[in-house]
Amino acid sequence: MEQIPVLKLGEFLLVSIQIELHDELVLGLQEDLTTRISETRARGVLIDISALEIVDSFIGRTLGHIAAMARVLDAETVLVGMRPAVAITLVELGMTLKGIRTALDVDKGMAMLKASADAGESSSSR
Amino acid sequence: MEQIPVLKLGEFLLVSIQIELHDELVLGLQEDLTTRISETRARGVLIDISALEIVDSFIGRTLGHIAAMARVLDAETVLVGMRPAVAITLVELGMTLKGIRTALDVDKGMAMLKASADAGESSSSR
Repeated sequence: MEQIPVLKLGEFLLVSIQIELHDELVLGLQEDLTTRISETRARGVLIDISALEIVDSFIGRTLGHIAAMARVLDAETVLVGMRPAVAITLVELGMTLKGIRTALDVDKGMAMLKASADAGESSSSR
Repeated sequence: MEQIPVLKLGEFLLVSIQIELHDELVLGLQEDLTTRISETRARGVLIDISALEIVDSFIGRTLGHIAAMARVLDAETVLVGMRPAVAITLVELGMTLKGIRTALDVDKGMAMLKASADAGESSSSR
């Protein structure tokens, strides 16, 4: 069962991280997600971490990499569901998750992605 | 990290099952889900099992219970993302998941829930 599913929700993808991320799992997720972005032409990715009680520097860095990969594939990443304790720990670790947008929950994250997709469409003839 | 998050997506709830279900986890999920249905007044529940390689009779029964609980709270349940091998095993086990609707993926499941919510609204003054 060691795989994190990437779910398609309209024009966005949702990844709900529920298990401890280790190297192999992260590599698998990066590959799955990038493949799915190009297959589905997704405009954005929501990563839900509400199940994570601990986000260490490895996970923080990994999330940053995933967001950067999505960005070069023209999909925006929003991190949702962070627990208050996790936010405290991240800042104490000196990790401010630069380059990743965050939202309180999936609904808010999706609204954010929709807003930027709409703004992108109206400003360019994409 | 032993908790399955219940994500709110508009007027529906999404549960992505990625880890082996054991008794305690199932009880926790049932409680979380029923609480969230009543809190959010959700009209439907999507249960994604695309990460599960094996669905045994315990999991099958559990999913049936969850769907029945949701139903008495006036929310419909759709099971999505079943792997072909899981479908084969379930039928061989004699479990046909009566009372649970299924859809290929989250998008299709959500369309199904939306259709029945709309039908319910137009036929009753709910």
